Amino acid sequence: MQNFIYHNPTKIVFGEGTIEKIGEETAPFAKKVLYVYGKNSIKTNGVYDQTTASLENAGVKRVEFGGVCANPLLSHTRKGIELARQEKVEAIVAVGGGSVIDEAKAIAAGTVAKNDVWEFYNRSGTAITAALPLFTVLTMSATGTEMNGGTVITNEETKQKLGIGSPFLYPKISILDPKTLVSVPKNQTAYGAVDAITHLLESYFTRNDPFTPIQDHYVEGIVRTIIEITPKMLEKPDDLTTRATFMWAATLAWNGLAPAGVGAWSTPNHLIGHSMSALYNTPHGASLSIALSGWLPWYEEQSQENRKRLDLLGLAVFEQSRTIDCLREWFHQIKSPTKLGDIGVDDNGLTKIAQNIGENAALWGIPEYNADFCISILKRCQ
Amino acid sequence: MQNFIYHNPTKIVFGEGTIEKIGEETAPFAKKVLYVYGKNSIKTNGVYDQTTASLENAGVKRVEFGGVCANPLLSHTRKGIELARQEKVEAIVAVGGGSVIDEAKAIAAGTVAKNDVWEFYNRSGTAITAALPLFTVLTMSATGTEMNGGTVITNEETKQKLGIGSPFLYPKISILDPKTLVSVPKNQTAYGAVDAITHLLESYFTRNDPFTPIQDHYVEGIVRTIIEITPKMLEKPDDLTTRATFMWAATLAWNGLAPAGVGAWSTPNHLIGHSMSALYNTPHGASLSIALSGWLPWYEEQSQENRKRLDLLGLAVFEQSRTIDCLREWFHQIKSPTKLGDIGVDDNGLTKIAQNIGENAALWGIPEYNADFCISILKRCQ
Repeated sequence: MQNFIYHNPTKIVFGEGTIEKIGEETAPFAKKVLYVYGKNSIKTNGVYDQTTASLENAGVKRVEFGGVCANPLLSHTRKGIELARQEKVEAIVAVGGGSVIDEAKAIAAGTVAKNDVWEFYNRSGTAITAALPLFTVLTMSATGTEMNGGTVITNEETKQKLGIGSPFLYPKISILDPKTLVSVPKNQTAYGAVDAITHLLESYFTRNDPFTPIQDHYVEGIVRTIIEITPKMLEKPDDLTTRATFMWAATLAWNGLAPAGVGAWSTPNHLIGHSMSALYNTPHGASLSIALSGWLPWYEEQSQENRKRLDLLGLAVFEQSRTIDCLREWFHQIKSPTKLGDIGVDDNGLTKIAQNIGENAALWGIPEYNADFCISILKRCQ
Repeated sequence: MQNFIYHNPTKIVFGEGTIEKIGEETAPFAKKVLYVYGKNSIKTNGVYDQTTASLENAGVKRVEFGGVCANPLLSHTRKGIELARQEKVEAIVAVGGGSVIDEAKAIAAGTVAKNDVWEFYNRSGTAITAALPLFTVLTMSATGTEMNGGTVITNEETKQKLGIGSPFLYPKISILDPKTLVSVPKNQTAYGAVDAITHLLESYFTRNDPFTPIQDHYVEGIVRTIIEITPKMLEKPDDLTTRATFMWAATLAWNGLAPAGVGAWSTPNHLIGHSMSALYNTPHGASLSIALSGWLPWYEEQSQENRKRLDLLGLAVFEQSRTIDCLREWFHQIKSPTKLGDIGVDDNGLTKIAQNIGENAALWGIPEYNADFCISILKRCQ
């Protein structure tokens, strides 16, 4: 165990029927909010009606800002900031999945900042020192953003998908109603599961402390649960038992507990996946099952110690030590891609992705992931 | 999974060398604090000097209030409240183990209350609505109070040891330096470990939802870690690796995550143990290993489902299904008592304890633990 600070002030309101609480939870903090959402899904599944009625009943006025897309864009974020300033909103209410909440965080920080919001993301030295309070209603589980201070935005001009974290970006309150997951399409359900297990595996495999049984078991338990229930979610999309379990699992996967105390750690698979998404708009989870399929065999070859760690995970999760094979079989089972060819990337594309990774690697704190090195990783997932 | 609210705003500052941060962490919130501590241990292990120097360097004045004892007393709590009011302190700094922090929480709430503090504990209908901010430096791991809103106080007049929880009682910041554990005596180390695993097992065995794999694995992983490292802590008291692991394990054991989502649950072993402590001043952890040694066999006999659940825990923790035997062997190994006779309680004492439990059971939400029923449980640990 190594030194750490853990502080996660987000209040989670979990369970069926909790969406209608968004009004009463928001009202003590704001009378006028920017209501951020994506495309049409919340209008077809009833969540738009539920949340807007709840806000109205609680006397909270809203300024609507829809149209957030998957891999949310900087240009759209800037429009949200402009609107939030014009309308002098006091808080943000985000209704959607990880993309909506991530963009809402960027708007929350950007609205009260003097600088352009992208300066927070490109590490130009500008740190977030304040943000509007954020309230979320989660409608797709995957990224864990509902209970952390992270946000990822894609700058479509520079082709960079970059993430940051700040203590000012933890949602004040996040409402998690598993019923919202029932209408999530099968592929998005699968990608969400891949995202959540990748979050857990990043620190599990890159930790630099040799004795972390608390964190190890924490990761193993949640990964095992997700591995077991995802095929069931795909089979019976309206079973709230598995949906609820997954919803809480995905939140716990990226709320800071897994890496707390493991020392320095990094997110190489997210780095690799983000470049795929930035260049090919690959769904986040899909990019991660490809990244893991190449990165894990590389990791395995590095040392006997790494092989032992893979075995440890395999025994805890699959009750056998064919860890990489079992994971790949699981990706196939849930129909998440494992090869670059699955998303239409040829040799030329592979090189472009490797270059993009290399350009961002230093920002991610792992400069050794230069273009040449990344080509060797990516070739393993061709 | 069932509906729940999870909100744990305590900031944890963990690791070697963190004690000296108490001043800078407290200063933004208060210029004058009540400095609550126990007996002499913090003066002999250096923590008193470190914390007072840090507070002084940060310009935080302190009013000292020492003398908190194990199973902290209402009369002493009332004196602390009087002193805090007289001196108009703005916050409480608690330096010690669970008893010190629990009494500090009572003082924090009692100081700003119009009613007598015991009215919060005896469920006379008075709820906590405010408290002074609390900052803690933990010197003994066991109760988890450093990251929850719980507090337990013993009323020596009525012979009641009662606990309550309130969102206002979460410490703002808790500093956990595993070096402070090195000087904890062996028996207290063992009792702390028993306390922590009992916290985890209460919701594991009394949950009312049939499908809780996330919470199950969470509990199993932490229990397994504590079971494995406690004998090592006793063998090598100055090994910071095991001390740090235990310190974080004990905090995670009672920070609200284990029961979140398992539905209604109860704490029968704590109820039973508290009565032993109230009547015989039994160390808290010692009372729990006795309680578990009687309660688990009773639990096992109730249903096939309960037997399966015991097996599940045993396989995850001990890799065998002799769960109760393995636990008893572990209690013996770490020298925590398993029989009432070990703490000098005879037949007459057993009856008194059962009566005391019966008197408090309704307050704990498990009125079926009346005196007659408790005699049948306690006879199993004679």
